[in-house]
Amino acid sequence: MRRFASLSLLLLILAGSGLAAAVRARQQSAPPPAPRPAWALAIHGGAGTPPRDMPEERKRAYLESLSGALADGRDRLERGESALDVVEALVRRMEDDPLFNAGKGAVFNAEGRHDLDAAIMDGSSLACGAVAGLTTVRHPIELARRVMERSPHVFLVGAGAEHFADEERVERVSNEWFSTPERLEQLEKRKAEGTFGTVGAVALDRAGRLAAATSSGGLTNKKWGRIGDVPVIGAGTYADDRVAVSCTGKGEEFIRHGVARELAALVRYGERTAAEAARILVRERLREGDGGLIAASADGELVLEFNTAGMFRGAADAAGRFEVAIWSAEGSP
Amino acid sequence: MRRFASLSLLLLILAGSGLAAAVRARQQSAPPPAPRPAWALAIHGGAGTPPRDMPEERKRAYLESLSGALADGRDRLERGESALDVVEALVRRMEDDPLFNAGKGAVFNAEGRHDLDAAIMDGSSLACGAVAGLTTVRHPIELARRVMERSPHVFLVGAGAEHFADEERVERVSNEWFSTPERLEQLEKRKAEGTFGTVGAVALDRAGRLAAATSSGGLTNKKWGRIGDVPVIGAGTYADDRVAVSCTGKGEEFIRHGVARELAALVRYGERTAAEAARILVRERLREGDGGLIAASADGELVLEFNTAGMFRGAADAAGRFEVAIWSAEGSP
Repeated sequence: MRRFASLSLLLLILAGSGLAAAVRARQQSAPPPAPRPAWALAIHGGAGTPPRDMPEERKRAYLESLSGALADGRDRLERGESALDVVEALVRRMEDDPLFNAGKGAVFNAEGRHDLDAAIMDGSSLACGAVAGLTTVRHPIELARRVMERSPHVFLVGAGAEHFADEERVERVSNEWFSTPERLEQLEKRKAEGTFGTVGAVALDRAGRLAAATSSGGLTNKKWGRIGDVPVIGAGTYADDRVAVSCTGKGEEFIRHGVARELAALVRYGERTAAEAARILVRERLREGDGGLIAASADGELVLEFNTAGMFRGAADAAGRFEVAIWSAEGSP
Repeated sequence: MRRFASLSLLLLILAGSGLAAAVRARQQSAPPPAPRPAWALAIHGGAGTPPRDMPEERKRAYLESLSGALADGRDRLERGESALDVVEALVRRMEDDPLFNAGKGAVFNAEGRHDLDAAIMDGSSLACGAVAGLTTVRHPIELARRVMERSPHVFLVGAGAEHFADEERVERVSNEWFSTPERLEQLEKRKAEGTFGTVGAVALDRAGRLAAATSSGGLTNKKWGRIGDVPVIGAGTYADDRVAVSCTGKGEEFIRHGVARELAALVRYGERTAAEAARILVRERLREGDGGLIAASADGELVLEFNTAGMFRGAADAAGRFEVAIWSAEGSP
């Protein structure tokens, strides 16, 4: 009888631990699953301190540019284009827009020239391509895609990368082509604000594939051939079968913390949602003012998280969400 | 009575799941803790296919070089030097050794010149520095350390990085200085074997701090300004407060899988030992022939894992371990 009682006690203890584990598992898991949207998309045009007294027409220009890109991405994903094609197309579009610090409108480095970096990653295959230190490639994201698909390499820099651009007949322009009067003024003022402005996109397509792309002109007044986080796969750009991430901000901090891949690791091994992982990274690991990120998960969850005063951003999905914003007080997205 | 039976069945199921969880937890946890060695150190001189018919004197030269570096590191760690200083010193020493593909003895690129990359990371602070596309800096690892400590940046490339080297009075040499007859012969033969040869070191010091350093001449006959995994923090080099990692092999695969940081994530979030994490990455994620890695954990665990025929390597710790090896059949380390 004592033996039976002990056995019962043991069973109860084990049952309790089993139950506790079950409860923990439930607590850790995502909220009751909403139906996965057929597609989801987020874009950013950089995080930083956009002046609160920004002229109304300039604010409108930003919001219209973001809306235009977002609508373009929505239409593409609606008609079944791949996440990879969509993130490339949207980043390419934002590279041509002088409002952002990527492609046309890139900031000036210490030599009064422009240095461009970009990266793209296909979450379904882990294929990726990155370029840095470009001075004459009109669309750095296009070259990153070529590196990914048409070279045996992942990461090309400088004159060598531009030589590869010629072999691939990728469009080149003069370095002056990237210049705009606003960026020149910025160099002269050496304003901290507005040196951000990297562009990026993450998407989940109808086939359930994820992709991420990022493009940047780097830091105003940078020197010494500095490379930021954008072309460092796992730092500023990353995608796998669970989540796609594109970052913007102080590149050195994003490299140190490997933000994009760390977010994916928190989702994969730490059993966090993309939103929880993003908050841990942006609010706990990084410091206030460091920047932000956008992420899309395989469940269609979209995350737009930043610790700066603002982040130019947009989010859309198949359930009808379509939002663009600049500052944080606006609440959404 | 039926209700009691159902309850018993439920208890048994829960007990079973509790028991299974307990067994899993035991299986996943490290073996019973040995006392942590006061320090631990591993080095590598590249993974690849060292010819089995390597002349006896050349084999002896490799083993002596590895032993010399290992003994140097042992003495430094014994007398309390920091892990960071030790990994820098050992990589610097191997950069000067023409046997390895780093610094003197670096392979030739497609233009018949040498392109050098290096990175270093301090696990206790997450401070890191990386350099790529150097052509005249004698000790790339020294410049990586300067980038880490004396620039606001993390990653510098090419001419800009060499300009920074001048500001820091870091020694520069002519590009021809790196040439050796053996590497020229290799370029001519374009042998696949031996194009590996990156060097690296990971260490745990008496104060419990971890650090990692890696330096490489990249791929024989490389072109287009290709950058491999070595200077990509999180791909070829990474250290935090749990583990330090240095990789060697097909750089593109190591970037794609973010091997060094992914190993750390498996340790931190996946509750794997460094050895288990290394096996998952090297044996499951990477493909045979891709390369290998060395890792040191905060517990003093040393891992030397590779999926190539051999990896030039050495391991030592305060408990008296002191081993060097080339091929895998030797069993250890």
